[in-house]
Amino acid sequence: MNGYTQDKEDIARRLKRVEGQVRGIGDMVSSDKYCIDVLTQISAATKALESVALLLLSDHLNHCVVEAIEGGGPEVSEKIQEANDAIARLVRS
Amino acid sequence: MNGYTQDKEDIARRLKRVEGQVRGIGDMVSSDKYCIDVLTQISAATKALESVALLLLSDHLNHCVVEAIEGGGPEVSEKIQEANDAIARLVRS
Amino acid sequence: MNGYTQDKEDIARRLKRVEGQVRGIGDMVSSDKYCIDVLTQISAATKALESVALLLLSDHLNHCVVEAIEGGGPEVSEKIQEANDAIARLVRS
Amino acid sequence: MNGYTQDKEDIARRLKRVEGQVRGIGDMVSSDKYCIDVLTQISAATKALESVALLLLSDHLNHCVVEAIEGGGPEVSEKIQEANDAIARLVRS
Repeated sequence: MNGYTQDKEDIARRLKRVEGQVRGIGDMVSSDKYCIDVLTQISAATKALESVALLLLSDHLNHCVVEAIEGGGPEVSEKIQEANDAIARLVRS
Repeated sequence: MNGYTQDKEDIARRLKRVEGQVRGIGDMVSSDKYCIDVLTQISAATKALESVALLLLSDHLNHCVVEAIEGGGPEVSEKIQEANDAIARLVRS
Repeated sequence: MNGYTQDKEDIARRLKRVEGQVRGIGDMVSSDKYCIDVLTQISAATKALESVALLLLSDHLNHCVVEAIEGGGPEVSEKIQEANDAIARLVRS
Repeated sequence: MNGYTQDKEDIARRLKRVEGQVRGIGDMVSSDKYCIDVLTQISAATKALESVALLLLSDHLNHCVVEAIEGGGPEVSEKIQEANDAIARLVRS
């Protein structure tokens, strides 16, 4: 189904924290905090999201892609293509 | 004080939307959605945050930095240094 | 051995072009070209390198990783780990 | 004219080094080096280019933008816009 089962709670916890960071950034803007301080927090939230993405991708390769290849069949090249597209989106975002 | 006054509502609205996106990503993880679909949403949220950061930076240069330079004084090089550090953090995140 | 055999000439040609771009950027600097124009060319060269990296990574997953998994053995998790590390370096560079 | 006069030799030297790195990467590909090793070198070259770009941008803000603002006139907002566009290209590349 998905490859992140063993990291699910960790990922959920990290996303909860990023959600709180982004809400905090919104509060900084509402209370007119200094631009540079807002930018620092945005960079931190972006890095945290990237880090979750890298964990998900690693889980995906280790489980979904490995299982697809072990199972064989036409699904393999589709799975690899999908992973490559996700990597390209990450590298370019 | 800060340089984003004229864009404050737009920025607050965009951050609210990113906060909702990140909460939605957490929900996807809780309901075991497919890794690649979660990754696609993370790339979208990352791009949205980056976009807010670029607007804040543009406002900062257009207002805070311009005013500091027009005002003169030792503050100028500090303001430029600060902006450069923020840009480096963004480029590297 | 490596996974990019079928794209080898294309990759070599693209790298040759990036090498020429970087030499051209050096020439722009030597002849005191305008900062922003130099920066535009650096962004273009960076994107071109990123694009070569994504092709290499795709070839690597499609060949080296697929073959390692099909072959089985302890090498598999090492190969995946290596790929994940390379992806993390790309995302963060 | 341009803002990097005092860093011109340093920038030229760094670009020369990146040019050599990219040529070296081309040689690695010609001699069928392992994908991951090629990717590691591409990440290093990309980081080196980014680093030159951040120095150029810093010089540009410290000199060209500061002088434009001190000089006043309609050129100011154009200069800031140009800098913002260059920053956006860097962040997205």
